[in-house]
Amino acid sequence: MTDDVNGTGVTREAVASLAATADPRLRELLTGLVRHLHDFARETRLTQAEWEQAIGFLTATGQACTDTRQEFILLSDVFGVSMLVETLGGERPPGTTESTVLGPFHLTESPPRALGDDIDLVGGGEPCVISGRVLSEDGTPLPGAVLDVWQADGDGHYDVQQPESQPPGNGRGVFTADDKGRFWFRTCVPAPYPIPTDGPVGELLRATGRHPYRPAHIHFIATAPGHTPVTTHIFVAGSDYLDSDAVFAVKQSLVQDFTDTDDPALAGEFGVPNPFRHARFDLVLEQTS
Amino acid sequence: MTDDVNGTGVTREAVASLAATADPRLRELLTGLVRHLHDFARETRLTQAEWEQAIGFLTATGQACTDTRQEFILLSDVFGVSMLVETLGGERPPGTTESTVLGPFHLTESPPRALGDDIDLVGGGEPCVISGRVLSEDGTPLPGAVLDVWQADGDGHYDVQQPESQPPGNGRGVFTADDKGRFWFRTCVPAPYPIPTDGPVGELLRATGRHPYRPAHIHFIATAPGHTPVTTHIFVAGSDYLDSDAVFAVKQSLVQDFTDTDDPALAGEFGVPNPFRHARFDLVLEQTS
Repeated sequence: MTDDVNGTGVTREAVASLAATADPRLRELLTGLVRHLHDFARETRLTQAEWEQAIGFLTATGQACTDTRQEFILLSDVFGVSMLVETLGGERPPGTTESTVLGPFHLTESPPRALGDDIDLVGGGEPCVISGRVLSEDGTPLPGAVLDVWQADGDGHYDVQQPESQPPGNGRGVFTADDKGRFWFRTCVPAPYPIPTDGPVGELLRATGRHPYRPAHIHFIATAPGHTPVTTHIFVAGSDYLDSDAVFAVKQSLVQDFTDTDDPALAGEFGVPNPFRHARFDLVLEQTS
Repeated sequence: MTDDVNGTGVTREAVASLAATADPRLRELLTGLVRHLHDFARETRLTQAEWEQAIGFLTATGQACTDTRQEFILLSDVFGVSMLVETLGGERPPGTTESTVLGPFHLTESPPRALGDDIDLVGGGEPCVISGRVLSEDGTPLPGAVLDVWQADGDGHYDVQQPESQPPGNGRGVFTADDKGRFWFRTCVPAPYPIPTDGPVGELLRATGRHPYRPAHIHFIATAPGHTPVTTHIFVAGSDYLDSDAVFAVKQSLVQDFTDTDDPALAGEFGVPNPFRHARFDLVLEQTS
């Protein structure tokens, strides 16, 4: 029974109730969660009315989730929790590509594409070429490495947000590196964009006086046999919001120049009009031990 | 930018992002929440896979909520958070009735009833009478005090859980105390029951090896002008699970005898068959200052 007034008895009972959890890791996680939730409520003297508001907020967040929208990931993102978890898991050897958040738009399967394909199926954005290599941490190229790529269009929207005007798979593709570990494809330069603000997370941002923008970026998940996959972005150097990303995902090493390139021969090779913008970088994976 | 590896930079940025929150109490709450969430993730070295499981769990919890089911309240209940918040807010003068959790079943409006009415609209349970007075902390009766009452039936189900077999309002009623602050009504003795286990919270209980039962109880919200409302239960003395309530809501002062009563005159007065069970207690409210 929980007859004390400052609530330490409730905390003790709630923690004790987890003692029979069969999986020791689950027991550790739930015990830590219950302790922190209770400490938070006790330290802030959380009131019944505030608790009711929080219940309503969490319920609305769950109910805003659909097949094409993940409001809880968005909530985790704007609290910096997603980026923290990525950072904790991403302690990789120096020189390997740093990870960053998955984000809420990796919901559909990207279509397989051939090297050189254009993932901008609609057009209208500024044409560019993305090229580079997938390497192991010792510099060895990784032929057959797979890149899952997704990005917003030149106006800052993902395909799943605009099913009326964007075909499914616009801005997305799965590429396989060639026999020298090289990859290249065409797209448009992505634009900064606001995360969705028409749901509970939007309310939260307004209440906290925060802007909802993310700097321009392209998402990658790179995988290769014998290596740890990396979930990351490249950010467009010079983009607005690099210093105030709504989801705290920017790392300096991930900012890449999208260089203005005037090279008719290279443009012809890539099949883009000259001049064009060109981002060149290598993705470097850690060997699994 | 958040280039550190142990994530303190992300935490610093996430906390700083809340600095412009206009409402100082909201700023305090969100800052505390972000700090505790980040500390929890850092202390437990939360992995990406565990984070994904948590996102899935929270999403399922939100999507399990309907007009007649509140799975997030249930989650808060089984973590002891609801009871903790009640306890923190419930530091009332000695002698006044202690509060306990609202629970997830106060979702429909209880129908107004006359003193003496039977809220067991179905029958079949063990008949009993609940009677007593609503008093101010100095012992003054509170005529016109209002009691919102709800309970599970003799098999442990609320009306909203069994819309096929229970009429709406079964086990519920709003009573107004008479000119001497007295209340009395008929019902059946409630049974212990499991909280709903067919949703995410049920999965959690199974994973933690916990039983889902609550000891037998009747819910009350008592209100009177000039007094602080109290949300509470009375628990049936001798019920199973008084020492292991799934939601940690038992307080010793709330356990009441449901006395076997053999008194034909009193039975006639209350309109119940003799013998019957009788719970008698006063609800004592704190004056608002």
